[in-house]
Amino acid sequence: MPASAPSDRVIIFDTTLRDGEQCPGASMTYEEKIEVAELLESMGVDVIEAGFPIASQGDFESVHEIAKRSEKAVIAGLARAISGDIARAGEAVRVAKRPRIHTFVSTSPIHLAHQMRKTEEQVLEIISATVAQARNLVEDVEWSAMDATRTPIEYLCRCVEAAIKAGATTINLPDTVGYAVPEEYAAMFRAVRERVPGADKVIFSTHCHNDLGLAVANSLAGLAGGARQIECTLNGIGERAGNAALEEIVMAIKTRADVLPYGTGVDSTMLTRASKMVSAVTSFPVQYNKAIVGRNAFAHESGIHQDGMLKNNTTYEIMTPESVGVTKTSLVMGKHSGRHAFREKLKDLGYELGENALEDVFNRFKNLADRKKNVYDEDIEALVDQEIASAHDRTKVLSLTVIAGTMGPQSATLTLDIDGEHRTTQASGNGPVDATFHAIRQLIPHEAVLELYQVHAVTEGTDAQAEVSIRLSEAGYTVTARSSDPDTLVASAKAYVAALNKLSSKRNRLHAQAASA
Amino acid sequence: MPASAPSDRVIIFDTTLRDGEQCPGASMTYEEKIEVAELLESMGVDVIEAGFPIASQGDFESVHEIAKRSEKAVIAGLARAISGDIARAGEAVRVAKRPRIHTFVSTSPIHLAHQMRKTEEQVLEIISATVAQARNLVEDVEWSAMDATRTPIEYLCRCVEAAIKAGATTINLPDTVGYAVPEEYAAMFRAVRERVPGADKVIFSTHCHNDLGLAVANSLAGLAGGARQIECTLNGIGERAGNAALEEIVMAIKTRADVLPYGTGVDSTMLTRASKMVSAVTSFPVQYNKAIVGRNAFAHESGIHQDGMLKNNTTYEIMTPESVGVTKTSLVMGKHSGRHAFREKLKDLGYELGENALEDVFNRFKNLADRKKNVYDEDIEALVDQEIASAHDRTKVLSLTVIAGTMGPQSATLTLDIDGEHRTTQASGNGPVDATFHAIRQLIPHEAVLELYQVHAVTEGTDAQAEVSIRLSEAGYTVTARSSDPDTLVASAKAYVAALNKLSSKRNRLHAQAASA
Repeated sequence: MPASAPSDRVIIFDTTLRDGEQCPGASMTYEEKIEVAELLESMGVDVIEAGFPIASQGDFESVHEIAKRSEKAVIAGLARAISGDIARAGEAVRVAKRPRIHTFVSTSPIHLAHQMRKTEEQVLEIISATVAQARNLVEDVEWSAMDATRTPIEYLCRCVEAAIKAGATTINLPDTVGYAVPEEYAAMFRAVRERVPGADKVIFSTHCHNDLGLAVANSLAGLAGGARQIECTLNGIGERAGNAALEEIVMAIKTRADVLPYGTGVDSTMLTRASKMVSAVTSFPVQYNKAIVGRNAFAHESGIHQDGMLKNNTTYEIMTPESVGVTKTSLVMGKHSGRHAFREKLKDLGYELGENALEDVFNRFKNLADRKKNVYDEDIEALVDQEIASAHDRTKVLSLTVIAGTMGPQSATLTLDIDGEHRTTQASGNGPVDATFHAIRQLIPHEAVLELYQVHAVTEGTDAQAEVSIRLSEAGYTVTARSSDPDTLVASAKAYVAALNKLSSKRNRLHAQAASA
Repeated sequence: MPASAPSDRVIIFDTTLRDGEQCPGASMTYEEKIEVAELLESMGVDVIEAGFPIASQGDFESVHEIAKRSEKAVIAGLARAISGDIARAGEAVRVAKRPRIHTFVSTSPIHLAHQMRKTEEQVLEIISATVAQARNLVEDVEWSAMDATRTPIEYLCRCVEAAIKAGATTINLPDTVGYAVPEEYAAMFRAVRERVPGADKVIFSTHCHNDLGLAVANSLAGLAGGARQIECTLNGIGERAGNAALEEIVMAIKTRADVLPYGTGVDSTMLTRASKMVSAVTSFPVQYNKAIVGRNAFAHESGIHQDGMLKNNTTYEIMTPESVGVTKTSLVMGKHSGRHAFREKLKDLGYELGENALEDVFNRFKNLADRKKNVYDEDIEALVDQEIASAHDRTKVLSLTVIAGTMGPQSATLTLDIDGEHRTTQASGNGPVDATFHAIRQLIPHEAVLELYQVHAVTEGTDAQAEVSIRLSEAGYTVTARSSDPDTLVASAKAYVAALNKLSSKRNRLHAQAASA
């Protein structure tokens, strides 16, 4: 892509799995990362930054697996300007059809002085050596000048020149601290492209953080300055205030083609589904008024606007809900629906399951349909997501009875299946959730800390399934798990147990790794 | 302010209570609006758009009360270009020390053709007449050209000229559909200010929607084009994807004084508290990576960034958490804390309560301290917010016992105090929350629809208080209520009953209004 990209084609580089996943609490499991990567590829993202392979064995494995499965997207692995990082990134991505190593080094005086403790000349040598090493491993090498927007332009140009000479094919000039305003960000690209020999042979890239709310505007300004790759994330997740939101970039370019004469390869009708998936796997809520993907983004309340909408929807709507994949919640199936119809519905929703998984989900669907009047698409999605997540669980919730209310103390009687053995206990607590979690802790002693407990209704009505998200952390590792059930407390118990299962498989992988090292 | 504002002083016009409150589900009660207005005034917001007085009796009353209580802020009331609207807005705001009528009319061809069904000449006459009417009622009149960014510049200039001639002191050129990009938005202000006679005598204003993620960038571009008032909302709430976020505007101007040579009168250290209050009264969550006020905005996870932060916090931080009022969650009080210390703590948190309310909250604090090991600031804030909300309730939850779990059907036994009478019932349901709500419905039959059910933990730990948010709608009215308790189900019951109380008082007010009309 980089070398042959036509001048109006913007390369969309998604870093949800790297910059997004590295923000506090957004950790995803191996399976979740692969699922997100598959969706990114199918929606037409050009470059997927799959992770930071040197960071951990888990990161390496997920980047490697994503690279192996990729078909048309470029798969990038991040590496600091350190030989070991670059070798590891190369090892992780080289199984991809189109592998990329993305290496970076700080260039701003404040980073050189306080973080790197290196001189300008030393950093220039590092750039030449590390980019050359990467280029020996793969053809497609991206180099980033970390904190570019706080780097004096003369020195920045010397760094970019060194990177291009050493073989970089993409040059990224990030606004690492979210400090730039659009005019100066565009001017930086113009200056670098004018002054650096060979700048016309590479693709320039933006990477904007949203600390002042300007990430999308800065990215678009970068295009005006000659950049043709935008680094972004779904829902704008990422360090601190996050990155430029992919969905806003794509829709701004699509909606304002008159003043933003560019194009992307992204199928915008998949944006809503992608946003929901990322929100679900990270348990990061999307605020209601989030542009493009918030639940209110296409909702109109004021009488004035409603009136205009009824008369002509272009009076207040510059995009259609359909263009970003918003569909109406639809009543789909009831207890008389058969296996075939259910399989077709799953296909419509984008799921393909093996026979056993399908049978399990179908049974749970029938069970739900018996108890719940209206079964919506979202209910089925919740069931399937949970089935996928629970495929390899050591521990399962068999039964739970809770007595709660104003009288206290609340108590819970719980039976778990732990590696095939049935164990029962009773516990009390400060509230029914606390009692339930105490019972779990009695049966599975652990040190993990509960960092997040969230409940929301999957569909409307008081008989809606409750979806509970739980985030546990232990010894520096964080896992998130979800479960849904019409009974909030049952969903809570299942989510907590699912999180413990994830932690335990993480622990096993780490032990295996330590033993083999 | 308008006439004497120095050239670098930006007037911050907050419309959280009008454009923010009019987005689906964000309705606030009378008391909540007054509380938000008081906070806005104390943080130094220049203009508070308090509501749309003609919209309902409730809107009129809250605007009137906010106007009456105001001390230094300008209080604006919105009015369509209709004589009755303007008279009503004038009546609502004229008790303010500094009243403003804000009247608007659509100017774009698409609105004229489809919504207004008027000719350009007719609209010009309407502008002259309505602005003159407003100016006869108050000195400070703002006129807005709805959908200005899709209005041909020649006609827009004629409209602005008519408004200025008729006495408008502020001219607002909104990007009603969130369509503009920064360059064209700046260019529009430049063109209007150059061409329209008398433009130098008025203040120009921005009003940007965030449909493409560009609201903040467009607002700042407006300043470059000569605007000196920015219309914005806390957390960026508002129609569809919302408005420019006040906190981002204020912090961009403050942080980038070098390239944005302006100033505001807003005390930025109050931004976090204001954001939390608006999120609480609307039950709209703030996404974790929201700029300035998201919980991750000042959090750093990646090893690289942590390392830099430890060495020098300017390597990755362009603002300090303290500058926006982020304080560390602190362990504050336990069961041995006395009444005096508790009152001091409340004062620190910004609450001043009457003796009876203080006594009630203190008793609930002691009760909580008995059951919960660590009592945090947030726990106390939740208690007080609930106390304020429940001051005038007809119905109270006396006791609740719930039996839940995997065995089903779940059942709830509930006793309510309804106007002093104790009534008890038992109900079953699909899950403990459903059973509890069925029990409430048996005791208080009603038609309201549950639109939102949300649970989150107020502080960390499994013994945290759960805060439940409930949104009910009935006959076009929406109310939101919250309640907190260590028992999720008790909190759910209390929140549901609180929402019913709000609906009932809304109903009574409407009946009174109908009777007097």
